[in-house]
Amino acid sequence: MNKKTTPLGVLAVDVPPSTPNSLYPEPFASRMSGREKRQLGDFFGLGNFGVNLTRLAPNAVSALRHAHSKQDEFIYILSGCPMLQTDEGRTQLSPGMCAGFPSGSGNACNLINESPDEVLYLEIGDRTPGDEVVYPDDDIQALLADGRWRFTHKDGTPY
Amino acid sequence: MNKKTTPLGVLAVDVPPSTPNSLYPEPFASRMSGREKRQLGDFFGLGNFGVNLTRLAPNAVSALRHAHSKQDEFIYILSGCPMLQTDEGRTQLSPGMCAGFPSGSGNACNLINESPDEVLYLEIGDRTPGDEVVYPDDDIQALLADGRWRFTHKDGTPY
Repeated sequence: MNKKTTPLGVLAVDVPPSTPNSLYPEPFASRMSGREKRQLGDFFGLGNFGVNLTRLAPNAVSALRHAHSKQDEFIYILSGCPMLQTDEGRTQLSPGMCAGFPSGSGNACNLINESPDEVLYLEIGDRTPGDEVVYPDDDIQALLADGRWRFTHKDGTPY
Repeated sequence: MNKKTTPLGVLAVDVPPSTPNSLYPEPFASRMSGREKRQLGDFFGLGNFGVNLTRLAPNAVSALRHAHSKQDEFIYILSGCPMLQTDEGRTQLSPGMCAGFPSGSGNACNLINESPDEVLYLEIGDRTPGDEVVYPDDDIQALLADGRWRFTHKDGTPY
């Protein structure tokens, strides 16, 4: 780590928020307003997985509701009470709760902050090449290739 | 997830602690007393990485001081103030702090709880096959093969 002069430990909130706020094409990127991510894993030069500290203002969402073909995902709630939305319905989460989403389940998930208070959580996902993402509620799909997300309409035409 | 009747979200402290407490051979396993891990990622059936909720009693250590060849590691402190020990020295961590350890750096790390209070933290690591672990302070080395850790003395003789 010292090769990069990265500190041994940091306060997570001191890591700068990532920009742009969303990689989605419009009109979806604008729907991510009120969401702020700090890429903690990238800060330390990790490559195999990402760890984000994510803040959701009231009414903000974590992502479009989605499911990964190859990436496992995991969330841990630090503060606030977001609603977890999945194919099976809605579940209120609270601080100290966690949830995991194995790749290939097809169960599309996201979080929405329907409360008047901020939500702060950790989200973890690996970076398995060839990962595909489906979004059952929106006309978009994604493929991870050469380390980059490529977004298209569901008929395959590019954004 | 519903195929396995796993709940959508759980309180992390409600996940049962893993047993045995340590995979190390003796005399190292006994040195992990006072450490308790809850395998949150495994609870949800994740395979690409592990997420543990780990509790350190006063004087307990997270692991033998070690460095991975292929596995990235990341920690986030939830409560308490552990000491991070690395090749570069010691750094006191506190709640809301995090640290990341890229694979292949050779920088051997662990946490020790030198405080009178419990420490609670999240630890994340991927499961890249062929991962090797070196322990500069102890006569032990490890290799991840076929999903299992194999421990030997530094001269290659098995424990």
